[in-house]
Amino acid sequence: MSIDYNLRVEKLTESFKDRKTDLLVITDPVNIFYFTGFYADPHERYMSLVLDVEQRESHLFVPALDKDAAEVARVDHIIPISDEEIPFEILSLNLPKDIKSVGIEMNVMTVAHQNGLKTIFDDPEFMDIQADINALRIYKSRTEVEGLKKAVNIIEKVLEDGLKTIREGMTEADLVAEFEYLMKKHGSAGPSFSTMVLAGEKAALPHGTPGDRKLRNGDFLLIDFGVITYDRYCSDITRTFIIGKADDKQKEIYDIVKRSTQAGVDAVKAGVPLKEFDIAARSVIQDSGFGEYFNNRVGHGLGIEVHEAPSIHHLNDDIAQKGMVFTIEPGIYIPAYGGVRIEEEVYINEEGEAEVLTSFPRDLREISL
Amino acid sequence: MSIDYNLRVEKLTESFKDRKTDLLVITDPVNIFYFTGFYADPHERYMSLVLDVEQRESHLFVPALDKDAAEVARVDHIIPISDEEIPFEILSLNLPKDIKSVGIEMNVMTVAHQNGLKTIFDDPEFMDIQADINALRIYKSRTEVEGLKKAVNIIEKVLEDGLKTIREGMTEADLVAEFEYLMKKHGSAGPSFSTMVLAGEKAALPHGTPGDRKLRNGDFLLIDFGVITYDRYCSDITRTFIIGKADDKQKEIYDIVKRSTQAGVDAVKAGVPLKEFDIAARSVIQDSGFGEYFNNRVGHGLGIEVHEAPSIHHLNDDIAQKGMVFTIEPGIYIPAYGGVRIEEEVYINEEGEAEVLTSFPRDLREISL
Repeated sequence: MSIDYNLRVEKLTESFKDRKTDLLVITDPVNIFYFTGFYADPHERYMSLVLDVEQRESHLFVPALDKDAAEVARVDHIIPISDEEIPFEILSLNLPKDIKSVGIEMNVMTVAHQNGLKTIFDDPEFMDIQADINALRIYKSRTEVEGLKKAVNIIEKVLEDGLKTIREGMTEADLVAEFEYLMKKHGSAGPSFSTMVLAGEKAALPHGTPGDRKLRNGDFLLIDFGVITYDRYCSDITRTFIIGKADDKQKEIYDIVKRSTQAGVDAVKAGVPLKEFDIAARSVIQDSGFGEYFNNRVGHGLGIEVHEAPSIHHLNDDIAQKGMVFTIEPGIYIPAYGGVRIEEEVYINEEGEAEVLTSFPRDLREISL
Repeated sequence: MSIDYNLRVEKLTESFKDRKTDLLVITDPVNIFYFTGFYADPHERYMSLVLDVEQRESHLFVPALDKDAAEVARVDHIIPISDEEIPFEILSLNLPKDIKSVGIEMNVMTVAHQNGLKTIFDDPEFMDIQADINALRIYKSRTEVEGLKKAVNIIEKVLEDGLKTIREGMTEADLVAEFEYLMKKHGSAGPSFSTMVLAGEKAALPHGTPGDRKLRNGDFLLIDFGVITYDRYCSDITRTFIIGKADDKQKEIYDIVKRSTQAGVDAVKAGVPLKEFDIAARSVIQDSGFGEYFNNRVGHGLGIEVHEAPSIHHLNDDIAQKGMVFTIEPGIYIPAYGGVRIEEEVYINEEGEAEVLTSFPRDLREISL
């Protein structure tokens, strides 16, 4: 895959020239990956990407033990920091002194880190740059969409193969173990978020935790999961099944959610407010009398993180644009009874039209123990 | 298990009375768990535990969707914050106004969060409280040690069962998948850190990543992994095996590391500087002429996190105390050849003596494909 990291950096720094920001100090490992092609989790050690707006120069500060791995990074300078060194002394030695304004990710940078920057620059002004980074990350190129599709293909194989392991006596946690095993066997780096398998009444919990609840006939079986590939693209899909035979109420609820997902997907196109997609899906559920059982936003962007911009909710007036990728995932959650969610990933392509990246069938499926 | 969370909070707040700190605002989910018994990962949402030093009153602010789960928390007030609310407005409504000094975890709290606190209090002084929290967490009660032992028991069963799955053609990543599957099947919540399986020359990398390297006869097979239990106790163990028959050089290196680990464990007792344990293990490797191939500290504390205080390195003059739990994990890493590490967990018990929590045999073991 070919990604122009320099172009990404240029677009970001360009947008700060007029704002008289001298330096951008990026500390979120995912953002560092986005701008350099190098990913590492530094744990408690120091790592940052520093971009000099005026000089167009990039410095990547990494823990010494990541130095070799960091060679892939598309940056001007890689500066290792050993455990014996004090990170901000190393920064001070490598960066210009006359810094008046520093852009940081305020929701990521720690207070200790900001204090460190204050010790090496003379009381600089700080500004938040997360929105500017999001504004770049929100548009996916075809190359990135191919990466996302690969993540979708893996999770759909995992779903099909994992369903075959279901047996009498199995718990939610057992099925999670099977799925996560298959994620690795099918060539992903692992789950992109905590795998959710919820049975029966637990399917009513939009954020429930799988446990020792056994799968039983008559259960809803809600599965919400995804993988992250070695290229660091994430997938996220939900399907809901019935264990044994579906009764009439289950069929009714399932059908409403299925129509709601379809309505959400059908609404997707460039040029209209994002809220329209939420409203389209939500209307189907409301018109069927189950509106009180759908209390979440209908979707979220995804890419190199499983949750990123944009947020697809009924108050978001931002306009849908070509290149956006997000989920459409309406659901009905009835406390102490159960729930259904059907989640797709949608890409707004070069023609401004919806392209559904997920392909696992949405028809009601009954699974025998 | 019985843990006195109120006592933990009292010990912490007591230590701040003399220092005229008004409020402690704790945001690390692991620290919140330590003081309340409630754990949640709030992701991008707001969560904090606020302790009023003078009034001895505790407030737990949680995302609304975690409200029910938070009922287990041993706190005076649980305040849910919905997605429509602004967290710092809710804090302001619930906390005293006249705050001059706030204790925070500077290595955890984000700049955005600190800025939020600045908007609701009048230019307070901030101080770092992580060291004070570490000073409590470093001492493990017998109850906690039982929790840690359970995590050890699970990972040792996983190791024994996982070795049986090794077959011709298997890659490092395949074996990781088997191990992580067994972690869940044996009743843990999952890995406590990224499972490390390194074969052959890759065993020379103290922080290598498992990949599609196939297991071959003549390989070192280095396995470093652990689980976190549902009670949130972590384990961490390393064993190194030989695939096929060990040659003389492999036997020599293995034997040196085995004696080094034993020397480190033998040195452990209360009342002496922590560095002694590092030096005892290191001396064996240095005296054998392999000193240049052991460049890491010998160990680290663990508990509800897999890396916590104390750090066991050759410059740490802190005195070993009853209740500490840490690893002893010397190794020899020869670039482009291979490496051996043997890691145990040690507890300094009520008598001030070393109690080794790990029990998997340390003898050289050859594994057939």
